[in-house]
Amino acid sequence: MTGQNGGGLAERVMRAVAPEDDTVLWAMLKPVFRAGDTYAIDPAISRADALAFWCGGTHSAFVLEEGGQALGSYYICPNQQGGGAHVCNCGFITAPDAQGRGVARLMLDHALQEARRRGFRAMQFNFVVETNSRAVALWQANGFDVVGRLPEAFHHPDQGFVDALVMYRHL
Amino acid sequence: MTGQNGGGLAERVMRAVAPEDDTVLWAMLKPVFRAGDTYAIDPAISRADALAFWCGGTHSAFVLEEGGQALGSYYICPNQQGGGAHVCNCGFITAPDAQGRGVARLMLDHALQEARRRGFRAMQFNFVVETNSRAVALWQANGFDVVGRLPEAFHHPDQGFVDALVMYRHL
Repeated sequence: MTGQNGGGLAERVMRAVAPEDDTVLWAMLKPVFRAGDTYAIDPAISRADALAFWCGGTHSAFVLEEGGQALGSYYICPNQQGGGAHVCNCGFITAPDAQGRGVARLMLDHALQEARRRGFRAMQFNFVVETNSRAVALWQANGFDVVGRLPEAFHHPDQGFVDALVMYRHL
Repeated sequence: MTGQNGGGLAERVMRAVAPEDDTVLWAMLKPVFRAGDTYAIDPAISRADALAFWCGGTHSAFVLEEGGQALGSYYICPNQQGGGAHVCNCGFITAPDAQGRGVARLMLDHALQEARRRGFRAMQFNFVVETNSRAVALWQANGFDVVGRLPEAFHHPDQGFVDALVMYRHL
């Protein structure tokens, strides 16, 4: 998938993550995980564990580039096994200096296509922190329903115990 | 924790799972996972993978015995990391020949105590298949609320696509 950012600007290209992306990926993951206000990940997670989480196991990870610069990354995986394997899960991250440029939306479009291509029937986000209002709004604007609310399931570093949302859409 | 099944009957004892329990555990897990109608686990899962899932990683597993016979097992683990690590998750299994004898209820009581002892503030079940009505009723009778409904998130071997429930209670 490619897109254009405007006349004459570099093309945006989505491609599978490769081992040589580790440094670039960690530069994106580190500030988000260290902040600890959106992902339910140990803020002190090591570089190796963060990369293993993002790209390892059942995860397939992609990176969005523009003129050789990484703008963001996402992973896709089955959310459950067995009778639940037809529903996928994804995680998205935008580079700090690429905020507000439609990066998450572009990655979501790619993820929805990729999910259908892999035969998934639905996409589920298990844990969207309610205070992450930009994410909640983006998912809702793109067909996701709030199908669950986990009361005080997230301890926000500034706001204390807040709810997390389960969001879901059919494909 | 101990309990009694009636006058003169063997005492029920809950203890941590040990490596020598593998055969007994697999005898309980195998029929449930093979049936594929309650757990979102690959019905063809291997013995080693099933035991690794039940007892490995962040899971702490317990077994309930009566007169040396295993009646059931459960595990407890953090449901998320970082800001979500104060909510635990559990899985329960009852031996085929111990159904209808209050085993799941006894294990839940132990799990709730164990969860409080470990400092968890809530317990969450991520994926209770709606057709597993005995489980749904038991959890509801013991303080769990349905906080989410995942539409057609489970492919039941007989009933096709059915919903899965997210259930939650504070501790």
